[in-house]
Amino acid sequence: MKRTTEKNLMVFSGRAHPGLAHEVVDLLGTELVPQSAYEFANSEIYVRYEESVRGCDAFVIQSHTAPINEWIMEHLIMVDALKRASAKRITVVMPFYGYARQDKKHRGREPISARLMADLFKTAGADRLISVDLHADQIQGYFDGPVDHLMALPILTDYVKAKYGHEELAVVSPDAGRIKVAERWSAKLGGVPLAFIHKTRRTDRPNETVANRVVGEVAGKVCVLTDDMIDTGGTIVKAAEALMADGAAGVVIAATHPILSDPAVDRLKNSPAMEVIVTNTLPIPEDRVFDKLTVLSIAPLVARAIREVFEDGSVTSMFDGHA
Amino acid sequence: MKRTTEKNLMVFSGRAHPGLAHEVVDLLGTELVPQSAYEFANSEIYVRYEESVRGCDAFVIQSHTAPINEWIMEHLIMVDALKRASAKRITVVMPFYGYARQDKKHRGREPISARLMADLFKTAGADRLISVDLHADQIQGYFDGPVDHLMALPILTDYVKAKYGHEELAVVSPDAGRIKVAERWSAKLGGVPLAFIHKTRRTDRPNETVANRVVGEVAGKVCVLTDDMIDTGGTIVKAAEALMADGAAGVVIAATHPILSDPAVDRLKNSPAMEVIVTNTLPIPEDRVFDKLTVLSIAPLVARAIREVFEDGSVTSMFDGHA
Amino acid sequence: MKRTTEKNLMVFSGRAHPGLAHEVVDLLGTELVPQSAYEFANSEIYVRYEESVRGCDAFVIQSHTAPINEWIMEHLIMVDALKRASAKRITVVMPFYGYARQDKKHRGREPISARLMADLFKTAGADRLISVDLHADQIQGYFDGPVDHLMALPILTDYVKAKYGHEELAVVSPDAGRIKVAERWSAKLGGVPLAFIHKTRRTDRPNETVANRVVGEVAGKVCVLTDDMIDTGGTIVKAAEALMADGAAGVVIAATHPILSDPAVDRLKNSPAMEVIVTNTLPIPEDRVFDKLTVLSIAPLVARAIREVFEDGSVTSMFDGHA
Amino acid sequence: MKRTTEKNLMVFSGRAHPGLAHEVVDLLGTELVPQSAYEFANSEIYVRYEESVRGCDAFVIQSHTAPINEWIMEHLIMVDALKRASAKRITVVMPFYGYARQDKKHRGREPISARLMADLFKTAGADRLISVDLHADQIQGYFDGPVDHLMALPILTDYVKAKYGHEELAVVSPDAGRIKVAERWSAKLGGVPLAFIHKTRRTDRPNETVANRVVGEVAGKVCVLTDDMIDTGGTIVKAAEALMADGAAGVVIAATHPILSDPAVDRLKNSPAMEVIVTNTLPIPEDRVFDKLTVLSIAPLVARAIREVFEDGSVTSMFDGHA
Amino acid sequence: MKRTTEKNLMVFSGRAHPGLAHEVVDLLGTELVPQSAYEFANSEIYVRYEESVRGCDAFVIQSHTAPINEWIMEHLIMVDALKRASAKRITVVMPFYGYARQDKKHRGREPISARLMADLFKTAGADRLISVDLHADQIQGYFDGPVDHLMALPILTDYVKAKYGHEELAVVSPDAGRIKVAERWSAKLGGVPLAFIHKTRRTDRPNETVANRVVGEVAGKVCVLTDDMIDTGGTIVKAAEALMADGAAGVVIAATHPILSDPAVDRLKNSPAMEVIVTNTLPIPEDRVFDKLTVLSIAPLVARAIREVFEDGSVTSMFDGHA
Amino acid sequence: MKRTTEKNLMVFSGRAHPGLAHEVVDLLGTELVPQSAYEFANSEIYVRYEESVRGCDAFVIQSHTAPINEWIMEHLIMVDALKRASAKRITVVMPFYGYARQDKKHRGREPISARLMADLFKTAGADRLISVDLHADQIQGYFDGPVDHLMALPILTDYVKAKYGHEELAVVSPDAGRIKVAERWSAKLGGVPLAFIHKTRRTDRPNETVANRVVGEVAGKVCVLTDDMIDTGGTIVKAAEALMADGAAGVVIAATHPILSDPAVDRLKNSPAMEVIVTNTLPIPEDRVFDKLTVLSIAPLVARAIREVFEDGSVTSMFDGHA
Repeated sequence: MKRTTEKNLMVFSGRAHPGLAHEVVDLLGTELVPQSAYEFANSEIYVRYEESVRGCDAFVIQSHTAPINEWIMEHLIMVDALKRASAKRITVVMPFYGYARQDKKHRGREPISARLMADLFKTAGADRLISVDLHADQIQGYFDGPVDHLMALPILTDYVKAKYGHEELAVVSPDAGRIKVAERWSAKLGGVPLAFIHKTRRTDRPNETVANRVVGEVAGKVCVLTDDMIDTGGTIVKAAEALMADGAAGVVIAATHPILSDPAVDRLKNSPAMEVIVTNTLPIPEDRVFDKLTVLSIAPLVARAIREVFEDGSVTSMFDGHA
Repeated sequence: MKRTTEKNLMVFSGRAHPGLAHEVVDLLGTELVPQSAYEFANSEIYVRYEESVRGCDAFVIQSHTAPINEWIMEHLIMVDALKRASAKRITVVMPFYGYARQDKKHRGREPISARLMADLFKTAGADRLISVDLHADQIQGYFDGPVDHLMALPILTDYVKAKYGHEELAVVSPDAGRIKVAERWSAKLGGVPLAFIHKTRRTDRPNETVANRVVGEVAGKVCVLTDDMIDTGGTIVKAAEALMADGAAGVVIAATHPILSDPAVDRLKNSPAMEVIVTNTLPIPEDRVFDKLTVLSIAPLVARAIREVFEDGSVTSMFDGHA
Repeated sequence: MKRTTEKNLMVFSGRAHPGLAHEVVDLLGTELVPQSAYEFANSEIYVRYEESVRGCDAFVIQSHTAPINEWIMEHLIMVDALKRASAKRITVVMPFYGYARQDKKHRGREPISARLMADLFKTAGADRLISVDLHADQIQGYFDGPVDHLMALPILTDYVKAKYGHEELAVVSPDAGRIKVAERWSAKLGGVPLAFIHKTRRTDRPNETVANRVVGEVAGKVCVLTDDMIDTGGTIVKAAEALMADGAAGVVIAATHPILSDPAVDRLKNSPAMEVIVTNTLPIPEDRVFDKLTVLSIAPLVARAIREVFEDGSVTSMFDGHA
Repeated sequence: MKRTTEKNLMVFSGRAHPGLAHEVVDLLGTELVPQSAYEFANSEIYVRYEESVRGCDAFVIQSHTAPINEWIMEHLIMVDALKRASAKRITVVMPFYGYARQDKKHRGREPISARLMADLFKTAGADRLISVDLHADQIQGYFDGPVDHLMALPILTDYVKAKYGHEELAVVSPDAGRIKVAERWSAKLGGVPLAFIHKTRRTDRPNETVANRVVGEVAGKVCVLTDDMIDTGGTIVKAAEALMADGAAGVVIAATHPILSDPAVDRLKNSPAMEVIVTNTLPIPEDRVFDKLTVLSIAPLVARAIREVFEDGSVTSMFDGHA
Repeated sequence: MKRTTEKNLMVFSGRAHPGLAHEVVDLLGTELVPQSAYEFANSEIYVRYEESVRGCDAFVIQSHTAPINEWIMEHLIMVDALKRASAKRITVVMPFYGYARQDKKHRGREPISARLMADLFKTAGADRLISVDLHADQIQGYFDGPVDHLMALPILTDYVKAKYGHEELAVVSPDAGRIKVAERWSAKLGGVPLAFIHKTRRTDRPNETVANRVVGEVAGKVCVLTDDMIDTGGTIVKAAEALMADGAAGVVIAATHPILSDPAVDRLKNSPAMEVIVTNTLPIPEDRVFDKLTVLSIAPLVARAIREVFEDGSVTSMFDGHA
Repeated sequence: MKRTTEKNLMVFSGRAHPGLAHEVVDLLGTELVPQSAYEFANSEIYVRYEESVRGCDAFVIQSHTAPINEWIMEHLIMVDALKRASAKRITVVMPFYGYARQDKKHRGREPISARLMADLFKTAGADRLISVDLHADQIQGYFDGPVDHLMALPILTDYVKAKYGHEELAVVSPDAGRIKVAERWSAKLGGVPLAFIHKTRRTDRPNETVANRVVGEVAGKVCVLTDDMIDTGGTIVKAAEALMADGAAGVVIAATHPILSDPAVDRLKNSPAMEVIVTNTLPIPEDRVFDKLTVLSIAPLVARAIREVFEDGSVTSMFDGHA
């Protein structure tokens, strides 16, 4: 008995950020697979798919936003259910990779949670990962399998070029360790000057900063402050202030992942930044939207990656050709 | 260069139920290893041990209570940190095994989350598990390594015998699928009669019950209603009502795991049960304590198991001799 | 060089129960793959396939009947040979799952052989399992991969309804731990009353029973005694006697797996049961056939499952819709 | 809490060849760990240890004799029970390695059962193996862990030297593929001449031989016919006859593993061999003992290996110094 | 969204022996996938593919010639890059299997490097292996997956039959342990007589031989000296000399793998052999070519195997039907 | 039979850099385990230990210097031999982690060789790693087990402080991506100013740089140019030149790993740097020693780490307290 083999694309979404998932399937011309998903009274998560997924090429989208452990666990359980229901291949799509910042032991006796996450998804049954702008490129190597690492850079730089291209620009990294990202921005913006903020962090509480000094020339320039994510906004807002104090003509903040934990919104609103540009890899609740905030959609990038992976096209061109 | 090998017991506790962990280490005559543990602004968990754990025989206690995904993730991260810090052996102590009720596919395209949990802990670095009164004995087989399955039964039955031994008792299972537990109770209470409630569950929402009929003789007897856990209390309270309707002289509810999700406390308070007896495998917040509630400590059982595992003694006698 | 991918269904059978395998391939409209299989003089098993199996979608059927270790080892060796000969996917079909009753440690220092079997087949190269009426649903979770758990219930209940539907029926479980199965029977038979036999087992020799007491109302009813398997028949025949002693109008025994170890046949023949209904998941030698025995074929269920798995159809409907 | 670590040697035996196991523990000055082991009615094997094995250094002896699949499965189940009962290290002792002859694919679509066995024991929980005179040295590489490969050669050659050292000897291999073993014999006997039998095997039934021709000089010599095992005896007895036909002064047969499947005993009795020398790696039932048969005990070699492994001594000297 | 699945054959080659790879792809009617591959200044190897390999059926050819560790590492890195770039299936093609001679512990405390190589390739991401004339057939069992073991025998014997078929031939093994290969030659050449060289090796330096004695009749015959490989040529040239000393009419040397390490070429040139016949599984540099050397191409065999594996044809016939 | 467990430290060294290994064992007060290690004629590596290693706590030192693939393979083979000879725990000591720079996919279809190396050592049998100044901290997460990541920083900064502490210093990173290291230097030197060189790399040949611009104030200062390694020296020498061009008072180069591939020595000799300070994690052949070169020994750091790991002391203090 012989049959021609068919492959069948099915897209699944956790409950963390349904808006993005719907945008993605709309662009793909398909629909999310219907499912039941809820918590039991003791907060255990239950998931069940309403349609047969046997033999499908599954893409499971979840945004790792707060409450992050809940959404990661839902993501893992969704993968387990797909594995046991005979999905043929399972691609985990995490536009923001949770725990990416714990990608090394800053001190002894710490976990490396970013590696742990990769292993948990592998154990649950993930065959491959798709993610956007990993906190460190090395995280690609944490997963034992193919990782498609998408870059939101062109989306952000195209916007900045269109809106601020006529200004005298500088690209500034708010942190010595992330100048590489700023270098890519500088190249995309036509080789504009580069600067960074030299600061010291408390080693035991990595997201509290201490001192800020601008290294590089920023006077009279519109500074594009770039980072991969904005969490509480403390680092980046202090950087914006330092830039203005050093004579910058203006500051535009641009980052891929809008975590926007409290008190990020207040800080950003009150900061000297003219505009805050992010993507929607993470959901932004209504009450966190503010005037200066611009949200660019990551959905076209994700949809294109899913299509290329499904059709065995080349994803490389998605970050390679542009960067 | 030769050295005599020493082993070093170290006990760690997650933040879900510090009271139980402190009771356990007091009984062991040691202290919890000091640690930093907190959430970052975006709810990612951070853990670091304040002392060297190199070469230790680690026991990591965490109660899988709500918010359960948060506490399970903390448990996993604690194990990862121990593995990377060269603990010699890591025993995960979960007095209540989270997701134990999702131990099979009730319908197609469901996860088997209880197996997933076992695999996640294995992946993180757990060498062995200690748990109490698993929802199904088969869950022992989900972990790829030794599992010490402790039983709270003697603690509960000793109490019931002392207090109600003079009554004409019956043991009642609130669910056909859990009569095995009631059989063990019946044996421990000297062979008292057995009954069960025959009910139908909705297959899509397993914790909502529909109909209740008593199977067995309960008229004139004080009924000990037993189960492994009380979640929302719906099943067990309806069972108590059915027993009273069938002429029971009284109802005592006994269960190991006091999940007590809303509206369990209200239901139990207003139920015909004379007393509700549980252990402290899960924390019971002040505002969930009520008059009829009796909490017996599981700490001596857990402490003794840890000591026996550390000293290569026999844990078997802890559930075997009594049952 | 590109080719359209084809998939090729091939069905293999061990030597334990060729009759069932032939029935299955007849229903599928194909043939068993020819093979050499025999023992060497020292009882080592040798297997070789006579045709190329490269790239095939392999289904390997074996009944785990006595001598069970021999047939399980043949099953494992068949899987190994398929893996090394480049079968694309290997589905192990075990209508009866051997060692399913050792699915937990009843006491300390016992194996969990049911888990061991799952791991042995995984190691040999099995990608997925198909089995019928597992002794415990949790066994699905023992295999690290998809398990299609088929249910013979509709086959048995359809027969009982047709033949005994006009009687006043009760469904009786011979064992407190297996009432869940009886509940499913009760539902399928239109909600007839439920009862069970309360007995004590010797913990060291789990298949020898001691005492029997009927819990529930059976007087004047035709009792359908249900279980997943009949091994030596001791439990179920004593249950039948207890039911008659309690005034049952008659007893019909129904079980999926006819192990029928000695002295099951004599016991059943001499029992008060009017009829003994089983399926052919296990072979029944000529000399074990007796008048009261009715054997319903499981082959249509297995054949349909194989076809659905091969064609990526939904197997869920095979146990879900009916149960 | 600190303790000095102790290690505790415990020896276990399957039921295949208790005589050898008792000899071994007598030499070690200890006793076998008491256990329950029996078959259920449907031939499933049950094992339970009667004493705590927590933390022990376990050595599990089983002879892979007929019915070989039964004894291998018992061996696997014993290992599983030890793993789940927290044995610290598990060494599988298989004096004869079952399925060693299926150590390669002689033709396409065959299993490599010798590798499969190694993987099955690893999966069950074996940390290390001890075996005697593997059919091919490469089998050491099949197990993913340490293998202590003991050699019975000195036991056999010491006996032959003492009894036949005054004769003009030749060493003869009954098979071209096994001359390496004969070379070792020749070296141990002081460099006596070497010959072999050139024969053709049927590829589909490897233990039936076809033609025999002596290659090498044997006329007037007492020929020591050596092999690793005697199964049905066909090959070796035909070799003995060919040697006599070529003018040998006499033939002595020597092999490590006395499988002695039917009709080996009759063949050997009626053969021209003066003596048949074997060890007791496999049990020889009373009714297979015959006059010409000499059985040398392997127990001292196994006991010494266990002691050295337990005490971290050098096992290398056990085959290296003598060979 | 459904698509018909296509498979796409892509052939890759390391830099060790591009000639063979080009021959293979010419025969397949395709081309090697273009790549960048070079060493960094510190001798680390870098590889990158110039085309998308997503979803392809990859065959990666590398000859394990000196400097062998460099080429094996390149082979591993190529596999890693394919795995991470989402190749669907990766078949490692190693015409000569490096480290095959370290396939067992000759003495204690040695590695089993042949098993290690299999595990390294598995870890890097290899799904299957293709190799030619493994040093020991058991090496097939070292890889945890399908191995296609091709035989160059028919290529060599066809040539010998055509050229020397009219002579009175004998087949001679230069080593007692490799007579099995000579037996296959003898069968293919119509059952010509067999002989072997009895020699002693130094156990600590396995490629230095000590003494040589011909066992079998060779006087007046043209002897075909066969082995799987020629390394330094010491063994085989001494064997040729011993044969001539015993009255052979001539000697022809035939081997699959021409390692030809120094001083093999000088030894072979100056040996009494009339002709040295090899294949091109390994590259032979211009300066190692000599008059008596005949090189037969292995490319048709490898190309045919790749085609059959790609098309799910039977490779078995490639060694089975002819041998 | 009980014994007190002893642990036994044994140190092994590959052939790449025996000088460092001897320094380490001298500091530990022990000796290297004697071994045979050489290449066969075809460049395959052979290793054998001359003493029993059974039960030992093994530390295996190898410097990953050119020819790096040869030395890595020797390292892997040494681990395999230890595993099979029953070493109890195997710690791989790689003062310089080979292939660390290929720690991510810079472009599509590249390997992640740094992860591959971690997996290869795990597969061979490594339980833990010790390394010095990893190219990226994330590499710790590539190994599935404990990694002790030692830092040479205090050794280098102590030297610089003693010799140049009286000067007005600046710390300069030659690369935007490595400013984090310079930040640590700055902190250790008492908070001296920080600068970096902004350059563009060719993405296809990552070690060829294009343009250099100093970002930060360096005029009049003695600049300490820091990096983790010096390979061909191109980057760092161009940085030194750029600093001098920007008015630096002088340049001192400091790096942990002296790869010193051609033409590093010529470049450094001819550079404006006053001194080049390195450690001996890699061997420096006599002919690469030059006047300005200062080599500080890493042996005390490695010896102390081995001792702490053996004795279950805290290694954390080795990089934590100082940094």
